[in-house]
Amino acid sequence: MAAEDKCPETIYDVKTPSFLVDIDVIKRNVTRMKETCDRLGVQLRPHMKTHKTVELGEMMTNGTKKCVVVSTLDEAEFYATHGFDDILYAYPITQQKLDRCRRLAEKLEKFHMMVESPESMEALKTTPRGDNKNWSVYLEIDLGLGRTGVEWDSDLALTLAAEAANCPSIDFLGLYVHSGDSYLARGPDSIRQSGRKNTDKLLQLKVRLAEAGVTCPSLCMGSTPGCSHPDDSMAQLDCFSPGNYVFHDTMQMRIGTCEESDIACRVICRVISHKKSQNKMSIDAGFLAISHDGMELGLAEGPVIFQGHPELKLLGMCQELGSVGTQGTPLDFSKYPIGSLLFIYPHHSCATAALYKNYYIHSGEKIVGVWRPTRGW
Amino acid sequence: MAAEDKCPETIYDVKTPSFLVDIDVIKRNVTRMKETCDRLGVQLRPHMKTHKTVELGEMMTNGTKKCVVVSTLDEAEFYATHGFDDILYAYPITQQKLDRCRRLAEKLEKFHMMVESPESMEALKTTPRGDNKNWSVYLEIDLGLGRTGVEWDSDLALTLAAEAANCPSIDFLGLYVHSGDSYLARGPDSIRQSGRKNTDKLLQLKVRLAEAGVTCPSLCMGSTPGCSHPDDSMAQLDCFSPGNYVFHDTMQMRIGTCEESDIACRVICRVISHKKSQNKMSIDAGFLAISHDGMELGLAEGPVIFQGHPELKLLGMCQELGSVGTQGTPLDFSKYPIGSLLFIYPHHSCATAALYKNYYIHSGEKIVGVWRPTRGW
Repeated sequence: MAAEDKCPETIYDVKTPSFLVDIDVIKRNVTRMKETCDRLGVQLRPHMKTHKTVELGEMMTNGTKKCVVVSTLDEAEFYATHGFDDILYAYPITQQKLDRCRRLAEKLEKFHMMVESPESMEALKTTPRGDNKNWSVYLEIDLGLGRTGVEWDSDLALTLAAEAANCPSIDFLGLYVHSGDSYLARGPDSIRQSGRKNTDKLLQLKVRLAEAGVTCPSLCMGSTPGCSHPDDSMAQLDCFSPGNYVFHDTMQMRIGTCEESDIACRVICRVISHKKSQNKMSIDAGFLAISHDGMELGLAEGPVIFQGHPELKLLGMCQELGSVGTQGTPLDFSKYPIGSLLFIYPHHSCATAALYKNYYIHSGEKIVGVWRPTRGW
Repeated sequence: MAAEDKCPETIYDVKTPSFLVDIDVIKRNVTRMKETCDRLGVQLRPHMKTHKTVELGEMMTNGTKKCVVVSTLDEAEFYATHGFDDILYAYPITQQKLDRCRRLAEKLEKFHMMVESPESMEALKTTPRGDNKNWSVYLEIDLGLGRTGVEWDSDLALTLAAEAANCPSIDFLGLYVHSGDSYLARGPDSIRQSGRKNTDKLLQLKVRLAEAGVTCPSLCMGSTPGCSHPDDSMAQLDCFSPGNYVFHDTMQMRIGTCEESDIACRVICRVISHKKSQNKMSIDAGFLAISHDGMELGLAEGPVIFQGHPELKLLGMCQELGSVGTQGTPLDFSKYPIGSLLFIYPHHSCATAALYKNYYIHSGEKIVGVWRPTRGW
């Protein structure tokens, strides 16, 4: 009975709404990031959180299935089950999650974690792995974003790094940073400026650590804007961990990370209702198909782009309906008959992709695969 | 390896974040709505979109598994597969979805649909079911909300109703309304006022239809606020189709539909990081665990409530992190040690529930079941 069991032939045969992924754009995005890292001599440790699929994990690791980042234990277990190794769980660890981490550490050749508080350091020190091997640990650093991580210029950064480095049951890997301030940049120059500033702070901390006798083997920095337009100084880092660059989205486009043609994913939907008296129409994609992400920006900045129809704006959503109109100009309903298709570039592909059970992978119009992401925690 | 395969014993044993459903509150909510409908002599046709589970569908239909509403074809197929019948697909139908509707209509004893445009009426008229039976059709009416539906006072409402009533391959069921303006009400009196106004409009239209020779067998109206606090005049309606009332949420609470103690669902999460310099902390529930729904309201109105901690506010979210702080007062970090649990009442339970693979059902502290909602389209 389920229509999804039959694989549609072309993108025009999928049910609506569906999530489309252009494999040719993906390949270009994957190659470009690989080349950027190679050029700088930096290791690429791609983040899986944006797509959460085996297939794209393989592509991003150049077929090695090694050296990835995840943000949930579900992702870590999913990739471990599918033959991936050298997995970094880049999330502030807490005591309650250590049992699952131990199982991962025992199963994998390399499983790395992240601490950022005295409490989590204490939890690690007092909870041995149980197989006579060491926990492998990054210290998360906050370069001023104020989300998680130890403040880069704090004494605590020194204290925790020293504790990790001196603990006999911990292998201290170095410093991990989400350079999220690059999301505030606009344009490649501004992105590079943020990268230069962040790199400088991280290198300063590395020097401070060295002066305190703590060797810092690896400096790992993530964020799709920053890694897409790296400042030359970032060649002094050891590792990049971007994730969103495989799909990109309208947020990356507005930051200046990518062009519209680099966005590899779209929501396909249909016009299902005209409301001429109010100059708007409904599509069969609501917040469960698009996500609310970016709606706070308002119509001028976002959130989504209707491919080929720059005049269309997403006015609002309920669970299964999107309301679409124009700003100030009359909507030409004859261009959008009931049943006609629209293709939406999402504002934040991580948020939109997570809403789908399947991704329909296409090359040109032809469907060439169906990928199933993992979900949960 | 997957921790979720073992059923936790108590709510304190689930991994975080998880979605908890209090079965005792559910029973109370289900009974209350049933009694309200019985008192008014109105049939209850509960909406499945909020929870999308077999178990709760059975409870809401008093074990009959008959007479429900859904908003996607995936839901319709899911419930049909699990032995439910008399299913109303309350969504503007379009030509492209008729194949799946035909299969549902042939499988079920009763499958109803909804039209609201000349285009969809034409599609139905020119696409016979194929089993010599009639399509069973409601006309969706817009009472002024401006979402979907034919405007209640328009000539088109008369035209389409007459077309449906006179078409030999269609059984015309009557009028269906989502009384969404009740979400703008504040307090039971204001909700009843909206219900009275909507009922009056619907009855006026029924009279106009009768004058035009069109019999309107059923008037069906949905919305949790309106059906929870119905105006006496609503006894003249035939059918109520609320859905959210099983879970409720902080949005319903603020409207005045329910009390905090009526909210049956919570997100359970843990404090994972302190950021004392910024008077805030992080929880392991981000937008993939809570949803962005309601964030546009700002901190004063919403979006979520931390049970037992009215001083806490959800300041922002990224994919897997929520940022929690206070408004104006210092955050007492000693009350929220790293690893400690927090329980979140969601702003919009339909949006939050849809993010979870499993719901953990509990009575008191004890987990008594794990329900799996359907998802997709």
